Amino acid sequence: MSDASSKDGSQPLKIGLIGLGKIALDQHLPAIHGNPGLAVVAACSPRATHATLPVYRSTGEMLRAHPEIEAVAICTPPQVRQAIAREAIDAGKHVFLEKPPAATLGEAETIRRLAEDKGVSLLASWHSRFAPGVERARDWIGQRRLKQVRIAWKENVRQWHPGQTWIFAPGGMGVFDPGINSLSILTRLLGPEVVVHKADLHIPTNCDAPIQAQVEMVSGHGARIHADYDFLQESQQTWSIFVEAEQGENLALHMGGTILEIDGKVVLQEKEAEYPGLYAHFLRLVRSGSSDADFSPLRIVADAFLVGKRIAAPEYHE
Amino acid sequence: MSDASSKDGSQPLKIGLIGLGKIALDQHLPAIHGNPGLAVVAACSPRATHATLPVYRSTGEMLRAHPEIEAVAICTPPQVRQAIAREAIDAGKHVFLEKPPAATLGEAETIRRLAEDKGVSLLASWHSRFAPGVERARDWIGQRRLKQVRIAWKENVRQWHPGQTWIFAPGGMGVFDPGINSLSILTRLLGPEVVVHKADLHIPTNCDAPIQAQVEMVSGHGARIHADYDFLQESQQTWSIFVEAEQGENLALHMGGTILEIDGKVVLQEKEAEYPGLYAHFLRLVRSGSSDADFSPLRIVADAFLVGKRIAAPEYHE
Repeated sequence: MSDASSKDGSQPLKIGLIGLGKIALDQHLPAIHGNPGLAVVAACSPRATHATLPVYRSTGEMLRAHPEIEAVAICTPPQVRQAIAREAIDAGKHVFLEKPPAATLGEAETIRRLAEDKGVSLLASWHSRFAPGVERARDWIGQRRLKQVRIAWKENVRQWHPGQTWIFAPGGMGVFDPGINSLSILTRLLGPEVVVHKADLHIPTNCDAPIQAQVEMVSGHGARIHADYDFLQESQQTWSIFVEAEQGENLALHMGGTILEIDGKVVLQEKEAEYPGLYAHFLRLVRSGSSDADFSPLRIVADAFLVGKRIAAPEYHE
Repeated sequence: MSDASSKDGSQPLKIGLIGLGKIALDQHLPAIHGNPGLAVVAACSPRATHATLPVYRSTGEMLRAHPEIEAVAICTPPQVRQAIAREAIDAGKHVFLEKPPAATLGEAETIRRLAEDKGVSLLASWHSRFAPGVERARDWIGQRRLKQVRIAWKENVRQWHPGQTWIFAPGGMGVFDPGINSLSILTRLLGPEVVVHKADLHIPTNCDAPIQAQVEMVSGHGARIHADYDFLQESQQTWSIFVEAEQGENLALHMGGTILEIDGKVVLQEKEAEYPGLYAHFLRLVRSGSSDADFSPLRIVADAFLVGKRIAAPEYHE
């Protein structure tokens, strides 16, 4: 499927970008441009245009016009990802899926099966796992028994998701759209065997997805986990995970994992560079003919919806 | 874990029954009594008593009083199954899980992992798969390309679930408690790769789970599936699956699979005998040291909750 020059890495991997929304422009394009092993060839979007890239109205049009494309990055809203992924995989392209990998677990599992059957690489990406503090936090946790973990993931939806009305539509996940980032870090830190016990889902009466949520979980090793998600945070934005070990030692990741604090002291504070890390990971997967498709963060969200108590919240208007 | 006499089958498998509600009394006890390879030794329930069986107040009490128990059947409400399954598996007992296997996919996967690690047999049971018409319908479907499938699963909750208030509590699944039976048949007929596209969930304003639902799905082979679940059916109860093949041929399972109709003619009509079939299956699994734990029906329900449109329905009072 990919030609010899891309397999041996002598030529940059040629990428088609599907979806030209906020995340594609803010993160994907700069990360691709910054990696000499990658080249973006074209994009597609039902409406958007771009100053330098040729933009097509559909995946099929783009792939027909640019048969040299070897991989696609799918950055559309999750509700339409499965059909696009199927089209790209059928055409033999490697696939980089923006998070969440699909609107449902069934769709995600279907994409994984299609990619396996076709022999292309699949990355179900979780950008927050590439935050600078995550791997060091994982090492620290690996050497200790944990007592409890607390997640506080609070942001102002009006500031961070302007115009993204799909977020509150069925399948848009509401506050779990950013919240799933915390779960992607959590499952990297503690392993995928996190079980939901209880969830309170506060759903605005004019929306189909929660605007606030509290979730009680337990890790595979028995640590209690409490997560507090809030889309209506107006003051300081908070993306923190607090870990307490059995001997009273503690660790905290702040600002989505760019700050690592151990026993009250900041031991790491670095600029966010998640997408460059993600794209380097994707390139390694393609070059080695492998895949990375862990759906545990989406499974946790599905479980929270399955057992969640639905609480009516005031109407939301942007 | 199990002694030699049970492994070689010269002695009946000794079972402890956990939960003594409607399903335990109506189905499990008669099925166990009817199988000479099985013997029920004791039961436990927080409140219930029984005319002939010793009844304990907890799983731990029962297992301590009867170390000869080799397997447990867990027939409690789903919300408490994981903790009980863990206790039984830790004690080296084989586990028969009533459907649904747990309140969440995470719990179900944990139970599966624990059973694998301990080397005990696990049956995540789906009793409707043992309805008399299911295997013959599966053979018919295996020889055809399908166009569409329609599920109509409509019953009167007041008649079939009196006093089962857990059904409308978080994790109780509402109309999907019976509805998941249709999904267990569907995934036996069409394979587990069924993907949810859309769901309408009608949730009474005083409940946490739907009383009616419509779900749009597609099979791994591309057949469209429409399911209509209704807990407020007062006239004729309906548990039917209608299958239409590409050449216009059609098949229907009625009354939960006890009646099989092909091209408009009834070709099979048999008395329901699901639990005897299930227990024979469980005994074979234990004797052969294997497990049967397919969670695809629960995954479909979780996906329906994840992408479902929540529609307020009138209050429900039993």
